[in-house]
Amino acid sequence: MEKKILFPQAGGFLHGGDYNPEQWLDRPDILKEDVRMMKKAGVNCVTLGVFSWSVYEPAEGEFHFEWLEKIMDHLYENGIFTILATPSGARPAWLDEAYPEAMRVSRQGMRNHHGVRHNHCMSSPEYRKKTADMDRRLAERFGSHPGLLMYHISNELGGECFCPLCTARFQSYLAEKFDHDIEKLNQAWWTTFWSHRYSSFSQVEPPFANGEGSIMGLNLEWKRFTTWNMTDFLKEEIRALREITPSVPVTTNFMMLYNGLDYRKMARELDMISWDSYPRFHNDEETLFETMTENAFHHTVMRSMKKEKPFMLMESAPGLVNWHPFNKVKRPGVHKLFCLQTAACGSDTVQYFQWRKGRGSFEQYHGAVVDHLGTDDTRIFRETAQVGELLKKIAPAAGTCVRARAALLFDWDNRWAIQDVKALAETTKCYEKTCISIWKEFLKMGVEMDVVPSDDDFSSYDVIVAPMLYLLQPGTASCLKQFVERGGQLLATYFTGYVDDNTLCFMGGFPGNGLSELFGIISEEIDTLYPSDRNHIRFGNGWEDWEVRDYAEILRLTDAEVLGRYTDDFYQGGAALTRKRYGKGNAYYVAARCCPGQMRPLFEQMLTQAGIPVKQLPEGVEYHVRTGDEGAYEFYLNYGTAPACVQEVYGQDMLTGSEVSGTLTLEGYGAAVVRK
Amino acid sequence: MEKKILFPQAGGFLHGGDYNPEQWLDRPDILKEDVRMMKKAGVNCVTLGVFSWSVYEPAEGEFHFEWLEKIMDHLYENGIFTILATPSGARPAWLDEAYPEAMRVSRQGMRNHHGVRHNHCMSSPEYRKKTADMDRRLAERFGSHPGLLMYHISNELGGECFCPLCTARFQSYLAEKFDHDIEKLNQAWWTTFWSHRYSSFSQVEPPFANGEGSIMGLNLEWKRFTTWNMTDFLKEEIRALREITPSVPVTTNFMMLYNGLDYRKMARELDMISWDSYPRFHNDEETLFETMTENAFHHTVMRSMKKEKPFMLMESAPGLVNWHPFNKVKRPGVHKLFCLQTAACGSDTVQYFQWRKGRGSFEQYHGAVVDHLGTDDTRIFRETAQVGELLKKIAPAAGTCVRARAALLFDWDNRWAIQDVKALAETTKCYEKTCISIWKEFLKMGVEMDVVPSDDDFSSYDVIVAPMLYLLQPGTASCLKQFVERGGQLLATYFTGYVDDNTLCFMGGFPGNGLSELFGIISEEIDTLYPSDRNHIRFGNGWEDWEVRDYAEILRLTDAEVLGRYTDDFYQGGAALTRKRYGKGNAYYVAARCCPGQMRPLFEQMLTQAGIPVKQLPEGVEYHVRTGDEGAYEFYLNYGTAPACVQEVYGQDMLTGSEVSGTLTLEGYGAAVVRK
Amino acid sequence: MEKKILFPQAGGFLHGGDYNPEQWLDRPDILKEDVRMMKKAGVNCVTLGVFSWSVYEPAEGEFHFEWLEKIMDHLYENGIFTILATPSGARPAWLDEAYPEAMRVSRQGMRNHHGVRHNHCMSSPEYRKKTADMDRRLAERFGSHPGLLMYHISNELGGECFCPLCTARFQSYLAEKFDHDIEKLNQAWWTTFWSHRYSSFSQVEPPFANGEGSIMGLNLEWKRFTTWNMTDFLKEEIRALREITPSVPVTTNFMMLYNGLDYRKMARELDMISWDSYPRFHNDEETLFETMTENAFHHTVMRSMKKEKPFMLMESAPGLVNWHPFNKVKRPGVHKLFCLQTAACGSDTVQYFQWRKGRGSFEQYHGAVVDHLGTDDTRIFRETAQVGELLKKIAPAAGTCVRARAALLFDWDNRWAIQDVKALAETTKCYEKTCISIWKEFLKMGVEMDVVPSDDDFSSYDVIVAPMLYLLQPGTASCLKQFVERGGQLLATYFTGYVDDNTLCFMGGFPGNGLSELFGIISEEIDTLYPSDRNHIRFGNGWEDWEVRDYAEILRLTDAEVLGRYTDDFYQGGAALTRKRYGKGNAYYVAARCCPGQMRPLFEQMLTQAGIPVKQLPEGVEYHVRTGDEGAYEFYLNYGTAPACVQEVYGQDMLTGSEVSGTLTLEGYGAAVVRK
Repeated sequence: MEKKILFPQAGGFLHGGDYNPEQWLDRPDILKEDVRMMKKAGVNCVTLGVFSWSVYEPAEGEFHFEWLEKIMDHLYENGIFTILATPSGARPAWLDEAYPEAMRVSRQGMRNHHGVRHNHCMSSPEYRKKTADMDRRLAERFGSHPGLLMYHISNELGGECFCPLCTARFQSYLAEKFDHDIEKLNQAWWTTFWSHRYSSFSQVEPPFANGEGSIMGLNLEWKRFTTWNMTDFLKEEIRALREITPSVPVTTNFMMLYNGLDYRKMARELDMISWDSYPRFHNDEETLFETMTENAFHHTVMRSMKKEKPFMLMESAPGLVNWHPFNKVKRPGVHKLFCLQTAACGSDTVQYFQWRKGRGSFEQYHGAVVDHLGTDDTRIFRETAQVGELLKKIAPAAGTCVRARAALLFDWDNRWAIQDVKALAETTKCYEKTCISIWKEFLKMGVEMDVVPSDDDFSSYDVIVAPMLYLLQPGTASCLKQFVERGGQLLATYFTGYVDDNTLCFMGGFPGNGLSELFGIISEEIDTLYPSDRNHIRFGNGWEDWEVRDYAEILRLTDAEVLGRYTDDFYQGGAALTRKRYGKGNAYYVAARCCPGQMRPLFEQMLTQAGIPVKQLPEGVEYHVRTGDEGAYEFYLNYGTAPACVQEVYGQDMLTGSEVSGTLTLEGYGAAVVRK
Repeated sequence: MEKKILFPQAGGFLHGGDYNPEQWLDRPDILKEDVRMMKKAGVNCVTLGVFSWSVYEPAEGEFHFEWLEKIMDHLYENGIFTILATPSGARPAWLDEAYPEAMRVSRQGMRNHHGVRHNHCMSSPEYRKKTADMDRRLAERFGSHPGLLMYHISNELGGECFCPLCTARFQSYLAEKFDHDIEKLNQAWWTTFWSHRYSSFSQVEPPFANGEGSIMGLNLEWKRFTTWNMTDFLKEEIRALREITPSVPVTTNFMMLYNGLDYRKMARELDMISWDSYPRFHNDEETLFETMTENAFHHTVMRSMKKEKPFMLMESAPGLVNWHPFNKVKRPGVHKLFCLQTAACGSDTVQYFQWRKGRGSFEQYHGAVVDHLGTDDTRIFRETAQVGELLKKIAPAAGTCVRARAALLFDWDNRWAIQDVKALAETTKCYEKTCISIWKEFLKMGVEMDVVPSDDDFSSYDVIVAPMLYLLQPGTASCLKQFVERGGQLLATYFTGYVDDNTLCFMGGFPGNGLSELFGIISEEIDTLYPSDRNHIRFGNGWEDWEVRDYAEILRLTDAEVLGRYTDDFYQGGAALTRKRYGKGNAYYVAARCCPGQMRPLFEQMLTQAGIPVKQLPEGVEYHVRTGDEGAYEFYLNYGTAPACVQEVYGQDMLTGSEVSGTLTLEGYGAAVVRK
Repeated sequence: MEKKILFPQAGGFLHGGDYNPEQWLDRPDILKEDVRMMKKAGVNCVTLGVFSWSVYEPAEGEFHFEWLEKIMDHLYENGIFTILATPSGARPAWLDEAYPEAMRVSRQGMRNHHGVRHNHCMSSPEYRKKTADMDRRLAERFGSHPGLLMYHISNELGGECFCPLCTARFQSYLAEKFDHDIEKLNQAWWTTFWSHRYSSFSQVEPPFANGEGSIMGLNLEWKRFTTWNMTDFLKEEIRALREITPSVPVTTNFMMLYNGLDYRKMARELDMISWDSYPRFHNDEETLFETMTENAFHHTVMRSMKKEKPFMLMESAPGLVNWHPFNKVKRPGVHKLFCLQTAACGSDTVQYFQWRKGRGSFEQYHGAVVDHLGTDDTRIFRETAQVGELLKKIAPAAGTCVRARAALLFDWDNRWAIQDVKALAETTKCYEKTCISIWKEFLKMGVEMDVVPSDDDFSSYDVIVAPMLYLLQPGTASCLKQFVERGGQLLATYFTGYVDDNTLCFMGGFPGNGLSELFGIISEEIDTLYPSDRNHIRFGNGWEDWEVRDYAEILRLTDAEVLGRYTDDFYQGGAALTRKRYGKGNAYYVAARCCPGQMRPLFEQMLTQAGIPVKQLPEGVEYHVRTGDEGAYEFYLNYGTAPACVQEVYGQDMLTGSEVSGTLTLEGYGAAVVRK
């Protein structure tokens, strides 16, 4: 457990955010004032150049970098480091005018006009050439600047393109994947159904809105292709930069659980993971604790992509955002909790979009540290500066990591397959929500749980929960067997193991690929309940009944033990929760959708069997530990407005300097970081 | 009343369904197992070739039928007959690649890409040539196979096409219809309004989404044209088959009340009517009785298209389907009820889509007799085999017919005109629902009621209900007069007789074309109520008040008798239910929308006047009679979970063999077929 | 205060409507009957030719005006005047066939097909040539007809076009506006954001659906351009007519608050304002009083465009319309109230769409004076004829005007900016509703309030309310300061003064451009509440609390007096209603959205300070005064079904001839017009 501080130059946590001085080049007074205020706010890093292409190169072949150099120098002289973005996330108008192929074609088959942000065809040779050229120029000019910390490739990559170039690339990609044998594709995609057999790869088109939408294998592969093509574009930018400056690390900023790209595959090309977090604070459908622990889930997805090092929070809003359905302001103290949660979950940075609000266009009201008012005495500025202070206090925690012995399986492939499957009910599939709600229940027990894909290495885990693992990657079933055999506690649910990685159904009983042997059951039917339908599961061991909604499988037992049975309907008395001892471990199967809160006794049983302690936490308090060679840092965050007491806490609270020996009292919206 | 058994070869009812062995040609073990299991399930017929084009002709001009021959032979040897489909319902990819004109253009003016199922331009000469060629080959190869029962043309024909070929065909069609005189069209469509006069047929385009949508005559005629063109395509397929095998009967499978095609017109080209039934069983908005009796309505629409012979149920799901909003499984016993209802309503077949679930693509979870599990011990398989047994028991009923003395008028032309009319309220027009709910009320009284178009022959009826007969076909008004004159009981409602068959309003008072004389009233205004508005109709004869929703006409009396008057609003006291004795019959007019359950006394009065007996049925029990030369078969179906007793039943229950003399007791979900 | 009667020839009010005899040219009996019935209904004016192009010119270059001449002559001989429309609102099919450029291109980039009504490209040189030619012919033929009152240009102008011609015109328009300096545009639109800088005007495209939508300045300017281009088209028609007949007045009919065109700019080109009113009478969400007073707001918007003369009601439905969600009939007596309200609000005309219902197409069920029944004894005909009588009785009021000392600021520019702003909550911005509900509260106090744009002349007002004045026109801030300085009472609200006329944010604090000095406050944050969130404002002066919804600003006080403070949340105790005495007047600022009914005490205080009397009116009674040289006409309209008494009324009721001295008693749905 060595400590891997991400940016040793900065000496702890990064605090800062996107800075767009190119909007203010005619206002040197403002540029000067910015640096003064940054220092006052404890900012030690900014991200430059995200949207600067049209200023770097206002006309084709005419370059201007001198302004940036001056600003980077000035920042560095004032102790502020730079993350330098490549500007490929948005193009100048002249570029689209000169190279229309750089603009995307939509699922409807229409070429976009110039505009907005994400609009570039990832296949376009011209656009790839232009970006690589720009990136090389940036690396040459700024790659050895002492203030440079890293490169930030493009910005919030996303979207897809259906242009002829992408279609042709998709066809080559498929030919490659299926060994240039169209019959392999026909078999994998079950195209004989509805007479959809292809006789050549040239006949396979992307799933246009008015084209082929009924082949699940095609739909899934198109999504994989889009990830592949976007990653290929990303790699081409990285390659250009590394040609010049091979040792400067790179990242790109992810967007939560963005559905369009399998971030797990993109992550492999990056040195660090970074993401943008914008929770809907204080909404009217859930408590702040619910909002924030969902955010913790997203932090954990990011953290789990590179478990051996901290991740980065690349963007967040100091105040509100401007694109939520209701743009409510963060209540006082919540910004502090948000930033400490970021650190608690394993980030070494707290960064904002953006430093100063621009005067016009789409994001003129997106929260920023400095408002149109322009002063450093606003509530938002003060709360930001307070965070700057706190991050300095907990600086020793930077570089340490969060460690987990439990894991939840969550997968883009599985997610896409479930979204696309024609079965169940369109409105209640809720794969993501199902995963998040189970994960949260473990968090409430103070148990850290990685969120990993189903083809990950399970060897470091003792407990695995695999909700709705509909699609099985080639090795998943055998890895799960090995996991249980060597002593692991595994919980799977309804809708597990129906299809292979091309979405072909397994023959001979679900869960397939050998999993029915692991669990000792076969699922004969899956009943989709209407919203008002209810069933229950009853147990012989004293547990309270669990309420069943949405889905209930009807099981055949082969050699599992029945722990719970349905109370109602024609499958009354049928097995609903089973366990099979397999090797040294246990394989649990819950056949119906139940509330994770009611399932707590099962989770506790699994944790006990695995020797993982459950922590007693007051309601509304989130807990994480970061661990390094020199010790551990316990984070306690109280999302309630009333004080809360946590027992069995020992050490020094780094925020206040006070010693805690036994009872830690947190004020409303209070937090503590206890060094053991 | 001779008995017209549809398929004497099969000796009773057909039981079976779609079978797609081309998906399993690499699995001879499965093909063999299929036949074994079919026999176990009492299957005596399968439908082959629905989606086989890409296997028949994997590349243009390269044909493979040998596999099918082998399978048909094997089936026949095992006592299983074949319905052979033509494969035009879905095309191979090479065909769309080679002949882009075969793909449709949407209402938005965009040419589709290859994909999905229904995507062929009905006008395309190339596609017509290709299908006729394929059909001829099939007829030549399989037309004299002893196992062949009939041809099934294409599959679930539907959709429309706005391509240049269809536009030109539409213009010729119009020129033909309007005697090549554009002024006749201008007059019929009232184009002077909004300056829409055409000066040549070449100016008339289909109603593109971004084109002409304000001419109701055009909109209606486009729908008629689409039916005409689809029927013409259908006829071209039939012609090709009949060239080779003139005596093999043909059908195509209809889809409930599919809105896009006037099935009544297509039916004329077919030897038998067949359709696909997929009720939303056990939904959370209505009882099973409501769901099933709506299904009975649809059976009746089909039956009424060829009243002199049984119809066919071509598709249904043995378990669940995969495309409903909520895909709930059928409860045990309901499949049996569903199949017996099919027979009760006059079908000679019970067929499924499909025999075995495919492994991939759009319908991999559509219910089938054989699951991915692959065994014959599933609940679904057992219930299917039970149906096989029951159908054998009631085999003598095959070929008999359901007879009705009452009729409900229901029309595609009228339906389209109402859907398109700019009047009333878009959300509460509910023409179909209005018809169905009245029809159900007669069913609850044990009264069989045909569902026929308004230009049908009324001579065999004694009671006619014509809900919302907005559009009058040229002869309808005089036929209705004749019907009443000779002693018929007629009920019409608000929104009757406003327009002629081009949707031109009648002048001089609604209901027009002479109907105001028949009813003795003129409707001066129609009031559209908001959802929370209510009125009532009060009677002088002791009937309970009827509640009025949605629509209320304000009537002028000419020479009708007032039976009920409005209780509220400014037309309080105005006539709301009237009767005029006309010839030997009665013409009733109800001026407002009321609940059919409350209208029961009126219906009973009409039935009494017509001498049609009302049967006392327990709640939740459906009743039908099939009649042949040798006797009658009474079907009783209990959709309740509690037992129900029916009085005055005499004969032998063919399902159990027991005699019934007076009281028939039906278990929950129980049924009886009593031979008199 | 001279009296400006609009049409002296007609000797008082115009009563009539659209008449489309071209639909009935083959029915001379009907054309004759029309004139007889018009006279019976007190009709003295019809609008001809709105949709006559395809009859005027059935084929290109072949003209027929003789039929119209005959009809105009016959009408005139019977005392009925003509408003002659230009037929550009709908084109013959041959024109679109010959000149496809005359058809619009949608925001999606698709060229429309021929059809519907509004479908002409305003830029098309061909279409402009065709319309000017047609207009000249009409003016030459009918311009000196003694029955001609005025020209009605086109019909309900609306929509937008994205064709290449319009794109090019937009680019020239922008070059003109920004002095041919693309950097000025870049600065004004803040394009450096997201790298959106343009290097030439040729790169600026309209905001296509799949193009640039993130530049607020572009979006706003596109709307302004559409108004400019539509007005330019309108001017070209006017120019053609004036070449021949310079003295015939012109109008075009507006559609309520139609969002797509800034009517204030179009109004400058017209001699008179006219509009089309179609309230949703008797809906189930509000009282008739609420429906009708909203209609009064719309009348007032129209009236305020030319305050010095009466306006015209060009269209309304005598019965129902056919395009509302629920087309309910007007209850007896409501048509009379509607027509008297029209006069009360300052119109000199009551006109209908249309005289006689056509037999087919889109508007066959749109209410008309004469129904398909064709008789003069219908309820609708009788009520129309009654209105004809009443208008004659109040004829002396024609030509008088409504005068106001209070004004509400309402603006198309501000409206568009608020609709497009990415901030607040999309679903609760409700700018129009906010304005209307405040205006209604003043109406309930019997206070007439003009509705004027924020760049109007404020010199005649003593009270101004400026709800959500987000966008400040260049001179608005200083005009408002002058207004208060000279003694005016001004109320502004949350979301005031954020941006300039290019939607660039003001720096240094909102409300900007000097307004924070006028009000003595700065708005530091704006909190957007979720629908279930509530706060309150509490006062120290005995007023009841106001409930806060949707929006609440957090204010910094500079030198305002605090009248009310928030009761809840973290800004509890913060200023919510402030007043600053400025010069001789008061500048009030309410920082949150409250119900105008609760705000009544504030409104009354402002009115008292301004010396404007508040009138005591019974609930459900609307009141207006029209004033001329010879006296005043007080209109009282009771929308309740129960009688209502108004005190302090003196004069003669022109409807009944009876004297009122003190108490005026209005029957349910009763009205009085009292001449003082």
